[in-house]
Amino acid sequence: MQDMAAIDRRFMAMALGLGARGLGQVWPNPAVGCVIVKDGRVLGRGWTQPGGRPHAETEALAQAGDAARGATAYVTLEPCAHHGKTPPCAEALAKAGIARVVSALTDPDPRVAGQGHARLADDGVEMTTGVMEAEARRGNEGFLSRITRGRPHLTLKLATSFDGRIATATGESQWITGPEARRAVHAMRASHDAVLVGAGTARADDPSLTVRGLGIDRQPVRIVASRRIDLPTDSRLFTRIEEAPVWICHGPDADAERHAAWAGRGARMIEVSANGGRQIDPLSLLQALGAAGLTRAFCEGGGALAASLLNAGLVDELVTFTAGIGLGAEGQPGLGAMGLDRLAEAPRFALDRLDRIGPDVLARWRPAERATT
Amino acid sequence: MQDMAAIDRRFMAMALGLGARGLGQVWPNPAVGCVIVKDGRVLGRGWTQPGGRPHAETEALAQAGDAARGATAYVTLEPCAHHGKTPPCAEALAKAGIARVVSALTDPDPRVAGQGHARLADDGVEMTTGVMEAEARRGNEGFLSRITRGRPHLTLKLATSFDGRIATATGESQWITGPEARRAVHAMRASHDAVLVGAGTARADDPSLTVRGLGIDRQPVRIVASRRIDLPTDSRLFTRIEEAPVWICHGPDADAERHAAWAGRGARMIEVSANGGRQIDPLSLLQALGAAGLTRAFCEGGGALAASLLNAGLVDELVTFTAGIGLGAEGQPGLGAMGLDRLAEAPRFALDRLDRIGPDVLARWRPAERATT
Repeated sequence: MQDMAAIDRRFMAMALGLGARGLGQVWPNPAVGCVIVKDGRVLGRGWTQPGGRPHAETEALAQAGDAARGATAYVTLEPCAHHGKTPPCAEALAKAGIARVVSALTDPDPRVAGQGHARLADDGVEMTTGVMEAEARRGNEGFLSRITRGRPHLTLKLATSFDGRIATATGESQWITGPEARRAVHAMRASHDAVLVGAGTARADDPSLTVRGLGIDRQPVRIVASRRIDLPTDSRLFTRIEEAPVWICHGPDADAERHAAWAGRGARMIEVSANGGRQIDPLSLLQALGAAGLTRAFCEGGGALAASLLNAGLVDELVTFTAGIGLGAEGQPGLGAMGLDRLAEAPRFALDRLDRIGPDVLARWRPAERATT
Repeated sequence: MQDMAAIDRRFMAMALGLGARGLGQVWPNPAVGCVIVKDGRVLGRGWTQPGGRPHAETEALAQAGDAARGATAYVTLEPCAHHGKTPPCAEALAKAGIARVVSALTDPDPRVAGQGHARLADDGVEMTTGVMEAEARRGNEGFLSRITRGRPHLTLKLATSFDGRIATATGESQWITGPEARRAVHAMRASHDAVLVGAGTARADDPSLTVRGLGIDRQPVRIVASRRIDLPTDSRLFTRIEEAPVWICHGPDADAERHAAWAGRGARMIEVSANGGRQIDPLSLLQALGAAGLTRAFCEGGGALAASLLNAGLVDELVTFTAGIGLGAEGQPGLGAMGLDRLAEAPRFALDRLDRIGPDVLARWRPAERATT
């Protein structure tokens, strides 16, 4: 017979896998997974549903039904303890007769913050906490970032030639990376709450920024950072705004007419600070997105916005796609000017995962010498 | 019992592994491996010795001694048939009583070109040819390139930040990649006959370009391509020329005084063509190196030379080291101007191998849609 800790880890790993299904679909809520087990048999599996409700516990309990009595529930985050639209999950688990709850992580949300665990214990439920906590922390780093840092977890994507270029001097950029990389980008968009680009990219590429071909329930929010709202109204983002929400993050000195045009079309307008009146302040931008409820943002450039986020130390995850093509020094750089004088000032990342993807290289990096969320 | 073909492949793979030990050490000769086997037992193993002699067959026969009678010899390249400094290997194998020779590849050298195989057959030796031919072709692609194309196999190394930069705007470049990558570069130098840099890199970095810490027998030739020989005489290459040969490839209009200084110091001076009088012609450069006997050249930049070689389609192998650091658009590009108008004109490479190396990514690429040598 396996020891209890190994069994707990096995079912928690299952719950974490279920929880991950909600990434990008459940903001402002966390993406939680829940597994209900009795005598080694899985009776119910649940994950946070698109839009953030029902919660994972509700789903798993509904599946298990009466069999939940005396069972163990594995949850990737502390069950909620506050009455919202529905009764709290801690109450529901106890009411269903769950005998033991194994939880990975205390919810830092001040409305929970240990009260879910305490409530269950008060109700006589046996509690084990902190199982696979590191994995659960990473699995919900977006939600944790929103709660503890007031801003979403930020992933920066760079897709370049092997010499770091995203287009020729004349602006030709299709196709540098292959179809497999482009499909992976759509999957990455889908696992984030929002896709973020700078105004230059919006103007140059006229992107739609939607997730295509994956059959998702909830499209990520499409965000353009543009200090002066210098964005054409014949663009896809404007004309096809019904495909997915568009948010425009602009500076205090944005053009009033363009502001009215985009607002009138249904875009959400968010004013953020500008650095010395020149460029949108990246921290102010991310804090505004956190306040709006976003937990995971996926920045796809351009070079100026990417450089500004990197320089401010705001990139939590870096994804680089590298194609086997050389474009030369006149090509457009994937990363804009950083104003670095010394190598020691440059942002450093540690390699997290390395894969081939079609003909290209996919590397995932995390900030070096800095604890993750 | 295994079938004969599988047995042959097993011993040929061993011979190929032995042959590879000579890479970088044996130019202008091929790096050959030889294994002598009787009744499934290995009686002799040999590889081309530093400087190109003794040949692999000589080494293996010496090990096997009288036991070679009736044995099978596995050779990665057709045994030589011409009388040079020593009697030909084909003759030596027959004289030693070898009953069967398994060979991977016909030697395209016109002095051999099938005569080695024919001679052995004439002497009553059983012949099997073409075993693991593709692997043998790749293992000796440098020698094959020298014989069939008149130029060495060229490997281009780029070690950059994830945005394709090799230094900050102020020229700071130590250390972008980690110690593991730097060690790998020394091993790569050691497996090439020569290390090649442009004049800009020679001036900016004052490199020594030697192989350190690997205990090799023969240092690679250090080559600088400099049209006007604009190279300081207080540089390491000049002052420490006794550490390894230095060759200067210059244009027709090189400064006579500098030419005399470097020649007087012992550098080999090689005149090559210049494109429109501006830049050394990369094909002329490589042809000169091939004529001088080099089979494998390792180019370590700088950006201008790398771009010129890529543009001319002369890069047979591309090695990219990528560090988790962002330097921004003011940083110095690893690849210089290429003058490309369209993406379709850009040189394309297919990913051959992908590895982590310390904190960095090591990717090896081969020209796409082009047969290897």
